[in-house]
Amino acid sequence: MTTSEMRVELAERSYSIVVGQGALAQLADRVAKLFPKANHAIVIYDSNVATIAQSVAEQFQNKQWRVGHITIASGESSKSVDQLGRIWHELLDNRTDRGSIVVAVGGGVVGDLAGFAAATFARGLSLVQIPTTLLSQVDSSVGGKTGINLTSAKNMVGAFWQPSLVMIDTTTLESLPTREYVSGIAEIVKYGVILLPELFEYLQANVAAILSRDAQVLRHIVVESCRAKAMVVQQDERETTGLRAILNYGHTFAHAIEATAGYGALLHGEAVAIGMNMAGHLAQMLGRVDSSFVELQAKLMQALTLPITLAPSNVDAMWEVMLTDKKVEHGKLRFVLPTRLGHVELVHGVPRELAIEAINRCTKG
Amino acid sequence: MTTSEMRVELAERSYSIVVGQGALAQLADRVAKLFPKANHAIVIYDSNVATIAQSVAEQFQNKQWRVGHITIASGESSKSVDQLGRIWHELLDNRTDRGSIVVAVGGGVVGDLAGFAAATFARGLSLVQIPTTLLSQVDSSVGGKTGINLTSAKNMVGAFWQPSLVMIDTTTLESLPTREYVSGIAEIVKYGVILLPELFEYLQANVAAILSRDAQVLRHIVVESCRAKAMVVQQDERETTGLRAILNYGHTFAHAIEATAGYGALLHGEAVAIGMNMAGHLAQMLGRVDSSFVELQAKLMQALTLPITLAPSNVDAMWEVMLTDKKVEHGKLRFVLPTRLGHVELVHGVPRELAIEAINRCTKG
Repeated sequence: MTTSEMRVELAERSYSIVVGQGALAQLADRVAKLFPKANHAIVIYDSNVATIAQSVAEQFQNKQWRVGHITIASGESSKSVDQLGRIWHELLDNRTDRGSIVVAVGGGVVGDLAGFAAATFARGLSLVQIPTTLLSQVDSSVGGKTGINLTSAKNMVGAFWQPSLVMIDTTTLESLPTREYVSGIAEIVKYGVILLPELFEYLQANVAAILSRDAQVLRHIVVESCRAKAMVVQQDERETTGLRAILNYGHTFAHAIEATAGYGALLHGEAVAIGMNMAGHLAQMLGRVDSSFVELQAKLMQALTLPITLAPSNVDAMWEVMLTDKKVEHGKLRFVLPTRLGHVELVHGVPRELAIEAINRCTKG
Repeated sequence: MTTSEMRVELAERSYSIVVGQGALAQLADRVAKLFPKANHAIVIYDSNVATIAQSVAEQFQNKQWRVGHITIASGESSKSVDQLGRIWHELLDNRTDRGSIVVAVGGGVVGDLAGFAAATFARGLSLVQIPTTLLSQVDSSVGGKTGINLTSAKNMVGAFWQPSLVMIDTTTLESLPTREYVSGIAEIVKYGVILLPELFEYLQANVAAILSRDAQVLRHIVVESCRAKAMVVQQDERETTGLRAILNYGHTFAHAIEATAGYGALLHGEAVAIGMNMAGHLAQMLGRVDSSFVELQAKLMQALTLPITLAPSNVDAMWEVMLTDKKVEHGKLRFVLPTRLGHVELVHGVPRELAIEAINRCTKG
């Protein structure tokens, strides 16, 4: 078993991300080393990964820890005030105190919800994240964003709360449905485009191994993605300087795609892939890149079986959604756009016509 | 109009506390200076202080700000998950974003609840605290503790969230019921005992002026109390080193008194006064102070019309409550106890019999 380890150094807290096939076997030993006085873990897990959660719990039980279990139903609707209140009360019933460790096992929904509960119960519990989807492994492992939704408003309530340890076991990806797995790759392509040209080239050279979920290749691309995100987050820990905005490459389009297609019609990563293609076209129209960049990006995403075009759709509705985005200034949009592979910039005042044209160029038929 | 100003310098944020008769008149000017780009305030207020909240709102409206209002029913039961959820949704309905300023007007309940909503909406809004009770002015103005209760568990969920400004207008105390006003003085006596002997002596010398709510005397004792608390909090911002524990002088007894008398039978400050008297007796029994200290403390509290003895009560029930306290270690209690005026220490392993005897010595009849 080979694992890689990287450190994320933040003002609030520094922590390790351990990545590798079978990495989870080290979990309880590592947690016990980090918290020598602790003897109580609460495993909060997605009902889809109950087996993994059970083995996690057993590791702690074998160390004579007291272990509590809190199940979360799969899906975005769990990120609600009601579910948060339920988890708080279950933590209380479990006699959780500041010496207890919350272990979150699941995808982004569990990470966000359990992370927010950990951030706020007793004004802050130590948190170990075990992301089990590719998207959560490369996206929410770094950044410390936790939170819930308010009716239609995604992630409207939350806290920045850094974990004390992130364990990424790539074997958890083996049972992931193909569509969900591939969707997660879109965010990895993003890190290549915005920051790491060598990662982009590695993806180009290893398409088949990625699609077959080769453990060694997976370890490399997950570590590189976490490293890319950490580089950005370390410079803008609490999203105050604007630097973190580059992580939104493709996302202004993606959010509009998701909202108008109905949430769930497309997976988040699929919308991001299409959004990055649109952003590439927009950058080309603005003379920031030439057509070869757009083709290079589109070709890699297609090879990875990611979608790059949208079914015929309501462009006006998409524009309306984009206008309600947090990134609007006086009715004009700002977009994160590439100037070359590995470098993006925040571009202000993009006219409506060009954004619409970029959408149309990526619409089928 | 004379106001005093002090700075609280913390790692998370530094801010001013402005204290004085009529200080509130400066509010909108100061907030606008702190946040030159802001133009949206949400006033969250206790239904008891609607008039003050209205005048606060008008100050911002006169500056052409958009102003939202959120009312909170008076009383501890407002610090609930349900009320928190309601406030989050009202903030959303009010189109609140990261540029908005939350202005909390009221006592400790509003400060805790509005503060926690501010800490978590959009992962953190700027917060201005306007405490309108003596207790909240000298206790929750400094420390950054925000939160809500879970059924019977007080302050079980919350966050550390420092305000950007605290405005203490002592005229808001003029309409406070006598019993509530006097109750707040107990915490001021506490600062004298644990840290500031000169404040203790100032209280001794100004009993009549304090009871008549003299503006100048009030300004002095409120500023000194905030200064004392800031000295402690600056050394233990997130309650991790244990230094903040000295603020709990009298509170282990007080919590047991409140819980067994039924919450609300005694005001918090009243229970703290009795608890400090018990702590004084306990310190004497342990040979840490002599009887003159106990008498000095008791005499000042009596002069200030604070209670120092308990009606005949269930001592065993009080002990049981103390055992569930966070301050228990292996069934023995730790207490914050004085060694001299202005200095307290954390004392471990106090035997049950002595604690019971201290309670009995402060029980009537």
